[in-house]
Amino acid sequence: MRVLVPFDAATPKTRLKPVLNATERKAFAKASLRDVTATITQAGHTPEVLTTAQISITHPITVTPEPLTPAVNDWLERTDRPVGIVMADLSLVTVSALEQLFATAADIVLAPGRGGGTNAIVTRHPDFRVDYHDLSLRDHRHHARARELTYTEVDSYRLGTDIDTPADLIEVLLHTDRRTAAWLREHGITIQIGETGPEISRDDR
Amino acid sequence: MRVLVPFDAATPKTRLKPVLNATERKAFAKASLRDVTATITQAGHTPEVLTTAQISITHPITVTPEPLTPAVNDWLERTDRPVGIVMADLSLVTVSALEQLFATAADIVLAPGRGGGTNAIVTRHPDFRVDYHDLSLRDHRHHARARELTYTEVDSYRLGTDIDTPADLIEVLLHTDRRTAAWLREHGITIQIGETGPEISRDDR
Repeated sequence: MRVLVPFDAATPKTRLKPVLNATERKAFAKASLRDVTATITQAGHTPEVLTTAQISITHPITVTPEPLTPAVNDWLERTDRPVGIVMADLSLVTVSALEQLFATAADIVLAPGRGGGTNAIVTRHPDFRVDYHDLSLRDHRHHARARELTYTEVDSYRLGTDIDTPADLIEVLLHTDRRTAAWLREHGITIQIGETGPEISRDDR
Repeated sequence: MRVLVPFDAATPKTRLKPVLNATERKAFAKASLRDVTATITQAGHTPEVLTTAQISITHPITVTPEPLTPAVNDWLERTDRPVGIVMADLSLVTVSALEQLFATAADIVLAPGRGGGTNAIVTRHPDFRVDYHDLSLRDHRHHARARELTYTEVDSYRLGTDIDTPADLIEVLLHTDRRTAAWLREHGITIQIGETGPEISRDDR
């Protein structure tokens, strides 16, 4: 299956500002993108990157300055085959989590993210369109119902964990050993036990 | 399988203070406990509640003033059969998430929670002991390896989502329709879109 991976190449991961500067945030986001696309390939699917600026990566890319939602919907307009859409910041993704996503039978399959986001989608119906914003999960459910499409949700911690905030970096360090985790370790980022629980600390600066 | 559900009956869910008073926090925690035990029963297993104070519930209970870790370990001392341990605040739990947990073959099966917690465990080895605290997942992995036990982790958003903070209530309202969600709705708690994204609001006071 073709799997679209939207990627913000210009100003990614702004909420990581407390621990990473702008250049580092770009490098970190790129490491996560590469983990995600590599895992899609390992799962037997074909990643395509939808990026806001030119990047160097060994997969087909589409460069568009458009915001996320219209950019994805324009891409969806150009195909009537089943496709996947997987966010580039799912650093915890595994082959088996993707297999679960792609093996689930329904017109629309949604992988919920924390706080009502939609971290991954499979659409087998050419009329489905995305609408990424606050509580997008609720709207995607509604869109599917309104079009009388069958839809279901996959139950995956790894697909549900998008990496946005410093606290999310704990998840990367605990649950993966790939580029994204290696990048964090190389930059001195570790988990410490603070007064209110685990927190991210940085010791290279 | 016997499935232990530890429950803090005295001062549960203190981090919900911004939206619920002490009496309400107890009632909310009890609603979640009942959802969890009912789901364990529906999954064909036998819940037992390990509680810090007497409560009224239609399942076997053990009352102990001990802190969580020694209380669970004392209970584990008294059995050499495979058992499960499922936290009472997993309001999103489903039969299929529990089936996945209990069907996973290993001496020790762990369901990670956000921030390195351990939200559910199956132990099929009489020597395994728990150690609940910050980053307990890392220690439970280590304990299993140190005892040369086989261990694995299940990938479940529903088991990974423990309900601790006001933001977590968004998950309850989005992903369940049972007692816990009904309790929130009855108390005027809804999701609103705030300046930085979805947030919990309360309109009955």
